[in-house]
Amino acid sequence: MAPEPKPLRNIEGLLIDVGGVLYQGDEAIKGSVEALARLRETGTSFRLLTNTTRTTRAALAHKLRGFGFTVEEEEIVTPASAANAVLRRDGARPHLLVHPDLLPDCPPEAPEPDAVLIGDAGEHFTFENMNRAFNVLIGGGKLYALGKNRFFRGSHGLELDAGPFVAALEYAAGVEAILIGKPARDFFLTAADALALAPEKVAMVGDDVESDVEGAIAAGLAGILVRTGKFRSSDEARAKKGGAHVAASLGALVEDFV
Amino acid sequence: MAPEPKPLRNIEGLLIDVGGVLYQGDEAIKGSVEALARLRETGTSFRLLTNTTRTTRAALAHKLRGFGFTVEEEEIVTPASAANAVLRRDGARPHLLVHPDLLPDCPPEAPEPDAVLIGDAGEHFTFENMNRAFNVLIGGGKLYALGKNRFFRGSHGLELDAGPFVAALEYAAGVEAILIGKPARDFFLTAADALALAPEKVAMVGDDVESDVEGAIAAGLAGILVRTGKFRSSDEARAKKGGAHVAASLGALVEDFV
Repeated sequence: MAPEPKPLRNIEGLLIDVGGVLYQGDEAIKGSVEALARLRETGTSFRLLTNTTRTTRAALAHKLRGFGFTVEEEEIVTPASAANAVLRRDGARPHLLVHPDLLPDCPPEAPEPDAVLIGDAGEHFTFENMNRAFNVLIGGGKLYALGKNRFFRGSHGLELDAGPFVAALEYAAGVEAILIGKPARDFFLTAADALALAPEKVAMVGDDVESDVEGAIAAGLAGILVRTGKFRSSDEARAKKGGAHVAASLGALVEDFV
Repeated sequence: MAPEPKPLRNIEGLLIDVGGVLYQGDEAIKGSVEALARLRETGTSFRLLTNTTRTTRAALAHKLRGFGFTVEEEEIVTPASAANAVLRRDGARPHLLVHPDLLPDCPPEAPEPDAVLIGDAGEHFTFENMNRAFNVLIGGGKLYALGKNRFFRGSHGLELDAGPFVAALEYAAGVEAILIGKPARDFFLTAADALALAPEKVAMVGDDVESDVEGAIAAGLAGILVRTGKFRSSDEARAKKGGAHVAASLGALVEDFV
């Protein structure tokens, strides 16, 4: 029997996925601009929670404003921005192996690193840069990964994402990476903490049943799957079986919720 | 309890790793030139068995002579020449991701590849080259690896070997590499066969506890770890636990052995 979903009347804050929930392709998803405005009017706490690892929060905020959203950079949580909190908590001094475009959101490079923070560095995954990261790890450093995706469809066809290079360093140094992005438990907890709410008072809204919804529920949050973005009909049964709510869209959810 | 190591008095031939056993950086390891000469004088069978996949056998023989060794190209066994036979057997058409220096020993690059042959490409492990290999694999290609070593001590400190990049492509494309070099069982057996000796009459001497020593023992040979090259003190307990002998160096070993 499916577990009973957490009742939404207890929820005081929302974590909202971006791609497939706020916008799709080159435009806002119907009702989502109004939904975000309504959350703001009613003083409902929220953060935008995305796994983007090649775009800064500033660039993403700029893009969303172009779609008509009112959004501040500080309302966006990415693996890079969460990395700051995770590394501080662990007292880790990172060497960075990330795309230069992402540097503004990352913790600063430490002079005497005892950890590696790796993201989708693209053409910056050179042999020299991989060696530098490896030498930190083989000296006893921890490996933090913004994500472990395998590949994506880029402008030149299929391109390697961060995952293969994470796997390379794991193999080289005999370590296991600490994942920072969704569905890592810490990512949801850090975001709930940013809302100053206990996890059980927070719901994650997303279109990815595995990464968004199941990840959030595993971390003790409520999970809400929306039927937009990459949602497929087979996801609905899986989400409900896992104790999630399902809503037609962010717009429909906020109408019922607020 | 650790298994009893094979008694060395039964050993009639040696397979000797090259980097970290015969030489280190730009010079012969103390006693190794004399050790090889002594083996030759006493008529003890040996082959140099190396996963070095950056140089041809001819270039390696030349380099070793420069360090003072007397050695013939035919006494060197490498994965690259073995690859020719393996790929022919499988009817595979390879795309090559190897160091350009190794090309003379490799099968030719196929115009329409359905496989990837990967070696220690060093600085040629660029994002672009990794992507090219990945696109062959994701189209259904097989992955052949000359070696899967993790790292080695180069002139600039510890450097990544082919292994991490093999692991990266395995993870990216969801495939498992077919290993040609050490610690592949066939590689040790072929080399023992070249000495016209049964595997239990042969000992592998190396500085890599996993690839040299454990690999050889798994193939039925004796394994001898030397405390030179990339040896780290923690390797000794692991080697002994696996039933290996440990010697200070090749020189010290041959003094006791012959």
